[in-house]
Amino acid sequence: MRRTDLSGEACPIARSLSDIGDWWSLLIVRDALAGTTRFSEFQRSLGCAKNILSTRLAKLVERGVLTLAPAADGSAYKEYRLTEKGKALRVPLVALRQWGEEHLFDADEERLSLVDKRDGLPVARLSMHAQDGRALAPDDVEIRTTPD
Amino acid sequence: MRRTDLSGEACPIARSLSDIGDWWSLLIVRDALAGTTRFSEFQRSLGCAKNILSTRLAKLVERGVLTLAPAADGSAYKEYRLTEKGKALRVPLVALRQWGEEHLFDADEERLSLVDKRDGLPVARLSMHAQDGRALAPDDVEIRTTPD
Repeated sequence: MRRTDLSGEACPIARSLSDIGDWWSLLIVRDALAGTTRFSEFQRSLGCAKNILSTRLAKLVERGVLTLAPAADGSAYKEYRLTEKGKALRVPLVALRQWGEEHLFDADEERLSLVDKRDGLPVARLSMHAQDGRALAPDDVEIRTTPD
Repeated sequence: MRRTDLSGEACPIARSLSDIGDWWSLLIVRDALAGTTRFSEFQRSLGCAKNILSTRLAKLVERGVLTLAPAADGSAYKEYRLTEKGKALRVPLVALRQWGEEHLFDADEERLSLVDKRDGLPVARLSMHAQDGRALAPDDVEIRTTPD
């Protein structure tokens, strides 16, 4: 489908997709959330061509999802670090992970799960709640233009 | 970036991205969650070429995200309806929406918000919790291979 620029859309979903730009960029963010910082580590994990990875990383830096900083160990390497905006992608990634676990794996199929360190149990399914804590079903919510 | 088939990956995020296949397909699911069922309605909303929309819809049907059924009003039209697997994409879409609202809009910029019908307030930010209800911070969780 043609890549239209959705960055001016009033729908935050469309604008998010436009900002992140590519599915693969989410895998870069996934690896960064897991502690990956160096180009060679991303390349090993993602198995993609250097020039393409380089373009994607540059785009994520340009969009303020990653920053490029000198390595913490004082070496000549540069490190890619998540900004607050980048770290906040953790939640959409957890949601996609849970959807995938539920719908794309056989019950006994080996997978990488996100678990609570304390008890080793999977993180609870993300769900919608009101500001006052009430659980919200799909019919309890609607889309409105804000501010009014 | 080259589209590698990630459908066999142990990481549910990678598998989800591979299954959905394209950013734009998420906008089709967004519209379907908002009640869109007909080809012409999707086309009007998404503003894309017919052949491309047709391919994307067929892929979502093939993946079991949508089903194609006779129209509820008895007309000759066919309707695209979300399966349970498709409806479950609501949560990742809410997460992306909240990320976009937080990071891609000016404070007073007009947007389409997801609100609680009862009080008109935005849906609370999705967040990670343990099975027993404890709030979980990023450092409280880890990735493990399951089943062990």
